[in-house]
Amino acid sequence: MKNEFMEIAIKEAQKAKSAGEVPVGAVVVLDGKVIGKAHNLTESLSDPCAHAEILAIKEACANLSNWRLCDASIYVTLEPCPMCAGAIINSRIKNVYFGAYDARMGACGGKIDLFRENLSGHSINVYGGFYEDECKKLLADFFKNNR
Amino acid sequence: MKNEFMEIAIKEAQKAKSAGEVPVGAVVVLDGKVIGKAHNLTESLSDPCAHAEILAIKEACANLSNWRLCDASIYVTLEPCPMCAGAIINSRIKNVYFGAYDARMGACGGKIDLFRENLSGHSINVYGGFYEDECKKLLADFFKNNR
Repeated sequence: MKNEFMEIAIKEAQKAKSAGEVPVGAVVVLDGKVIGKAHNLTESLSDPCAHAEILAIKEACANLSNWRLCDASIYVTLEPCPMCAGAIINSRIKNVYFGAYDARMGACGGKIDLFRENLSGHSINVYGGFYEDECKKLLADFFKNNR
Repeated sequence: MKNEFMEIAIKEAQKAKSAGEVPVGAVVVLDGKVIGKAHNLTESLSDPCAHAEILAIKEACANLSNWRLCDASIYVTLEPCPMCAGAIINSRIKNVYFGAYDARMGACGGKIDLFRENLSGHSINVYGGFYEDECKKLLADFFKNNR
Protein backbone atom coordinates (compact mmCIF):
# COMPACT_ATOMS: atom_id res chain seq x y z
CA MET A 1 0.00 0.00 0.00
CA LYS A 2 1.48 3.29 -1.16
CA ASN A 3 1.72 6.12 1.34
CA GLU A 4 3.02 9.52 0.35
CA PHE A 5 4.07 10.51 3.88
CA MET A 6 6.13 7.39 4.52
CA GLU A 7 7.78 7.98 1.15
CA ILE A 8 8.73 11.50 2.27
CA ALA A 9 10.12 10.03 5.52
CA ILE A 10 12.23 7.60 3.44
CA LYS A 11 13.53 10.51 1.33
CA GLU A 12 14.51 12.25 4.59
CA ALA A 13 16.31 9.09 5.71
CA GLN A 14 18.23 9.09 2.42
CA LYS A 15 19.34 12.67 3.13
CA ALA A 16 20.67 11.51 6.51
CA LYS A 17 22.58 8.71 4.77
CA SER A 18 24.16 11.20 2.33
CA ALA A 19 25.29 13.26 5.32
CA GLY A 20 26.94 10.22 6.95
CA GLU A 21 24.21 9.97 9.59
CA VAL A 22 22.28 6.84 10.59
CA PRO A 23 19.51 6.92 7.96
CA VAL A 24 16.29 7.77 9.79
CA GLY A 25 13.66 10.20 8.58
CA ALA A 26 10.41 11.46 10.11
CA VAL A 27 7.37 13.43 8.96
CA VAL A 28 4.61 15.00 11.08
CA VAL A 29 1.23 15.31 9.38
CA LEU A 30 -1.91 17.19 10.40
CA ASP A 31 -5.12 17.34 8.34
CA GLY A 32 -3.38 15.70 5.40
CA LYS A 33 -0.55 18.25 5.31
CA VAL A 34 3.13 17.89 6.21
CA ILE A 35 3.84 20.30 9.11
CA GLY A 36 7.29 18.99 10.01
CA LYS A 37 9.91 16.78 8.39
CA ALA A 38 13.47 16.02 9.34
CA HIS A 39 16.26 13.49 9.33
CA ASN A 40 18.71 12.34 11.94
CA LEU A 41 21.46 14.93 12.54
CA THR A 42 23.11 13.59 15.70
CA GLU A 43 26.65 13.65 14.34
CA SER A 44 26.35 16.87 12.30
CA LEU A 45 24.93 18.84 15.24
CA SER A 46 26.87 17.00 18.00
CA ASP A 47 23.49 16.60 19.65
CA PRO A 48 22.20 13.29 21.07
CA CYS A 49 18.68 14.76 20.94
CA ALA A 50 18.82 15.51 17.20
CA HIS A 51 16.92 12.39 16.17
CA ALA A 52 14.59 12.73 13.16
CA GLU A 53 11.43 12.53 15.29
CA ILE A 54 12.51 15.24 17.75
CA LEU A 55 13.49 17.62 14.93
CA ALA A 56 10.25 16.95 13.01
CA ILE A 57 8.15 17.49 16.17
CA LYS A 58 9.98 20.74 16.94
CA GLU A 59 9.38 22.00 13.40
CA ALA A 60 5.70 21.04 13.54
CA CYS A 61 5.26 22.83 16.88
CA ALA A 62 7.06 25.92 15.58
CA ASN A 63 4.71 25.93 12.57
CA LEU A 64 1.64 25.75 14.82
CA SER A 65 3.10 27.93 17.62
CA ASN A 66 1.81 25.23 19.94
CA TRP A 67 3.56 22.43 21.83
CA ARG A 68 0.46 20.23 21.53
CA LEU A 69 0.15 18.17 18.35
CA CYS A 70 -3.22 16.59 19.17
CA ASP A 71 -4.68 14.71 16.17
CA ALA A 72 -1.33 14.76 14.34
CA SER A 73 0.41 11.67 12.97
CA ILE A 74 4.12 10.91 12.77
CA TYR A 75 5.69 8.71 10.10
CA VAL A 76 9.20 7.49 10.88
CA THR A 77 11.43 4.97 9.12
CA LEU A 78 12.73 3.35 12.33
CA GLU A 79 10.87 2.48 15.52
CA PRO A 80 11.25 5.42 17.94
CA CYS A 81 13.73 5.07 20.84
CA PRO A 82 12.61 5.88 24.42
CA MET A 83 13.55 9.56 24.03
CA CYS A 84 11.51 9.93 20.84
CA ALA A 85 8.57 7.85 22.07
CA GLY A 86 8.60 10.07 25.18
CA ALA A 87 8.54 13.19 22.97
CA ILE A 88 5.59 11.69 21.05
CA ILE A 89 3.76 11.19 24.36
CA ASN A 90 4.62 14.71 25.56
CA SER A 91 3.46 16.29 22.28
CA ARG A 92 0.11 14.40 22.34
CA ILE A 93 0.61 12.97 18.83
CA LYS A 94 -2.23 10.57 18.05
CA ASN A 95 -0.88 8.12 15.44
CA VAL A 96 2.58 6.63 14.99
CA TYR A 97 3.54 4.80 11.77
CA PHE A 98 7.03 3.32 11.73
CA GLY A 99 9.06 1.21 9.31
CA ALA A 100 11.75 -1.04 10.76
CA TYR A 101 11.46 -2.51 14.25
CA ASP A 102 14.39 -1.89 16.60
CA ALA A 103 15.02 -4.86 18.87
CA ARG A 104 17.75 -2.96 20.77
CA MET A 105 16.26 0.47 21.48
CA GLY A 106 12.67 0.35 20.16
CA ALA A 107 10.18 1.81 22.61
CA CYS A 108 6.97 1.02 20.69
CA GLY A 109 6.96 -2.75 21.04
CA GLY A 110 10.32 -3.79 19.55
CA LYS A 111 12.19 -3.79 22.87
CA ILE A 112 9.84 -2.09 25.35
CA ASP A 113 6.45 -0.45 24.85
CA LEU A 114 6.18 3.00 26.42
CA PHE A 115 2.73 3.57 24.93
CA ARG A 116 1.34 0.74 27.04
CA GLU A 117 2.66 2.11 30.33
CA ASN A 118 -0.37 4.36 30.83
CA LEU A 119 1.92 7.38 31.10
CA SER A 120 -0.27 9.92 29.40
CA GLY A 121 -3.93 10.79 29.50
CA HIS A 122 -4.29 10.15 25.78
CA SER A 123 -4.12 6.94 23.78
CA ILE A 124 -1.70 6.56 20.90
CA ASN A 125 -2.28 4.30 17.88
CA VAL A 126 0.82 2.52 16.64
CA TYR A 127 1.34 0.87 13.25
CA GLY A 128 4.72 -0.89 13.03
CA GLY A 129 6.36 -2.47 9.99
CA PHE A 130 5.08 0.12 7.50
CA TYR A 131 7.36 -0.03 4.39
CA GLU A 132 9.44 -2.32 6.60
CA ASP A 133 11.62 -3.97 3.92
CA GLU A 134 12.66 -0.66 2.39
CA CYS A 135 13.42 0.95 5.77
CA LYS A 136 15.35 -2.10 6.99
CA LYS A 137 17.41 -2.24 3.80
CA LEU A 138 18.34 1.44 4.14
CA LEU A 139 19.67 0.81 7.66
CA ALA A 140 21.34 -2.52 6.83
CA ASP A 141 23.17 -1.01 3.83
CA PHE A 142 24.35 1.90 5.98
CA PHE A 143 25.73 -0.28 8.76
CA LYS A 144 27.31 -2.71 6.27
CA ASN A 145 29.22 0.17 4.69
CA ASN A 146 30.09 2.04 7.88
CA ARG A 147 30.91 -0.45 10.59
CA MET B 1 24.09 17.37 52.75
CA LYS B 2 24.78 20.54 50.76
CA ASN B 3 25.41 20.22 47.04
CA GLU B 4 26.29 23.24 44.93
CA PHE B 5 25.06 21.69 41.67
CA MET B 6 21.62 20.79 42.99
CA GLU B 7 21.38 24.32 44.34
CA ILE B 8 22.10 25.69 40.85
CA ALA B 9 19.41 23.35 39.46
CA ILE B 10 16.95 24.75 42.03
CA LYS B 11 17.86 28.31 40.99
CA GLU B 12 17.13 27.30 37.39
CA ALA B 13 13.76 25.90 38.50
CA GLN B 14 12.98 29.23 40.16
CA LYS B 15 13.70 31.00 36.85
CA ALA B 16 11.17 28.68 35.17
CA LYS B 17 8.63 29.56 37.84
CA SER B 18 9.17 33.29 37.25
CA ALA B 19 8.53 32.71 33.55
CA GLY B 20 5.24 30.91 34.27
CA GLU B 21 6.72 27.52 33.40
CA VAL B 22 6.48 24.33 35.47
CA PRO B 23 9.46 24.86 37.80
CA VAL B 24 12.10 22.33 36.80
CA GLY B 25 15.81 23.02 36.47
CA ALA B 26 18.76 20.88 35.38
CA VAL B 27 22.55 21.11 35.45
CA VAL B 28 25.11 18.96 33.62
CA VAL B 29 28.49 18.62 35.34
CA LEU B 30 31.78 17.21 34.09
CA ASP B 31 35.02 17.13 36.11
CA GLY B 32 33.48 19.34 38.79
CA LYS B 33 32.44 22.06 36.30
CA VAL B 34 29.00 23.08 35.07
CA ILE B 35 28.91 22.52 31.29
CA GLY B 36 25.17 22.99 30.80
CA LYS B 37 22.29 24.41 32.80
CA ALA B 38 18.71 25.17 31.86
CA HIS B 39 15.13 25.38 32.98
CA ASN B 40 11.89 24.19 31.52
CA LEU B 41 10.77 26.38 28.58
CA THR B 42 7.94 24.31 27.09
CA GLU B 43 5.39 27.11 27.06
CA SER B 44 7.77 29.96 26.16
CA LEU B 45 9.21 28.07 23.19
CA SER B 46 5.99 26.19 22.22
CA ASP B 47 8.19 23.11 22.27
CA PRO B 48 7.24 19.85 24.03
CA CYS B 49 10.93 18.86 23.93
CA ALA B 50 12.10 21.98 25.80
CA HIS B 51 12.36 20.26 29.17
CA ALA B 52 15.19 21.41 31.45
CA GLU B 53 17.19 18.19 30.99
CA ILE B 54 17.05 18.27 27.17
CA LEU B 55 18.14 21.93 27.06
CA ALA B 56 20.96 21.36 29.58
CA ILE B 57 22.18 18.28 27.66
CA LYS B 58 22.13 20.19 24.37
CA GLU B 59 24.13 23.05 25.92
CA ALA B 60 26.65 20.63 27.42
CA CYS B 61 27.10 18.86 24.07
CA ALA B 62 27.49 22.18 22.27
CA ASN B 63 30.19 23.16 24.78
CA LEU B 64 32.08 19.91 24.21
CA SER B 65 31.28 19.68 20.45
CA ASN B 66 30.40 16.07 21.21
CA TRP B 67 27.09 14.25 21.57
CA ARG B 68 28.63 11.86 24.09
CA LEU B 69 28.61 12.99 27.71
CA CYS B 70 30.40 9.94 29.13
CA ASP B 71 31.40 10.47 32.79
CA ALA B 72 29.11 13.50 33.14
CA SER B 73 26.44 13.87 35.82
CA ILE B 74 23.04 15.53 35.59
CA TYR B 75 21.28 17.20 38.52
CA VAL B 76 17.57 17.81 38.04
CA THR B 77 14.87 19.01 40.43
CA LEU B 78 12.20 16.58 39.18
CA GLU B 79 12.51 12.93 38.20
CA PRO B 80 13.09 12.79 34.41
CA CYS B 81 10.16 11.80 32.17
CA PRO B 82 10.62 9.05 29.53
CA MET B 83 11.79 11.58 26.90
CA CYS B 84 14.45 13.01 29.22
CA ALA B 85 15.52 9.63 30.64
CA GLY B 86 15.85 8.49 27.01
CA ALA B 87 18.02 11.53 26.23
CA ILE B 88 20.17 10.71 29.28
CA ILE B 89 20.62 7.15 27.93
CA ASN B 90 21.40 8.42 24.41
CA SER B 91 23.96 10.94 25.70
CA ARG B 92 25.77 8.30 27.83
CA ILE B 93 25.49 10.40 31.02
CA LYS B 94 26.82 8.36 33.96
CA ASN B 95 25.11 9.76 37.08
CA VAL B 96 21.60 11.11 37.60
CA TYR B 97 20.67 13.04 40.76
CA PHE B 98 17.06 14.11 40.99
CA GLY B 99 14.89 15.87 43.60
CA ALA B 100 11.19 15.10 43.61
CA TYR B 101 9.83 11.75 42.45
CA ASP B 102 7.13 11.84 39.75
CA ALA B 103 4.54 9.10 40.25
CA ARG B 104 2.78 10.03 36.99
CA MET B 105 5.58 10.42 34.44
CA GLY B 106 8.80 9.50 36.26
CA ALA B 107 11.01 7.19 34.23
CA CYS B 108 13.74 6.56 36.82
CA GLY B 109 11.75 4.50 39.32
CA GLY B 110 8.82 6.77 40.18
CA LYS B 111 6.45 5.31 37.59
CA ILE B 112 8.65 3.17 35.34
CA ASP B 113 12.41 2.59 35.30
CA LEU B 114 13.99 2.99 31.88
CA PHE B 115 17.49 2.59 33.29
CA ARG B 116 16.71 -1.00 34.28
CA GLU B 117 15.49 -2.03 30.84
CA ASN B 118 19.01 -2.84 29.63
CA LEU B 119 18.57 -0.45 26.72
CA SER B 120 22.10 0.88 26.53
CA GLY B 121 25.54 -0.60 26.72
CA HIS B 122 26.43 1.58 29.73
CA SER B 123 25.15 1.56 33.29
CA ILE B 124 23.66 4.68 34.85
CA ASN B 125 23.75 5.47 38.57
CA VAL B 126 20.58 7.08 39.91
CA TYR B 127 20.14 8.99 43.16
CA GLY B 128 16.51 10.01 43.74
CA GLY B 129 15.11 12.26 46.45
CA PHE B 130 18.09 14.63 46.51
CA TYR B 131 16.90 17.94 48.08
CA GLU B 132 13.48 16.31 47.79
CA ASP B 133 11.49 18.55 50.17
CA GLU B 134 12.68 21.76 48.54
CA CYS B 135 12.04 20.49 45.00
CA LYS B 136 8.60 19.12 45.93
CA LYS B 137 7.60 22.39 47.60
CA LEU B 138 8.59 24.39 44.51
CA LEU B 139 6.31 22.22 42.34
CA ALA B 140 3.47 22.07 44.87
CA ASP B 141 3.44 25.86 45.28
CA PHE B 142 3.41 26.32 41.50
CA PHE B 143 0.48 23.97 40.93
CA LYS B 144 -1.43 25.38 43.90
CA ASN B 145 -1.16 28.87 42.40
CA ASN B 146 -1.70 27.90 38.76
CA ARG B 147 -4.29 25.16 38.58
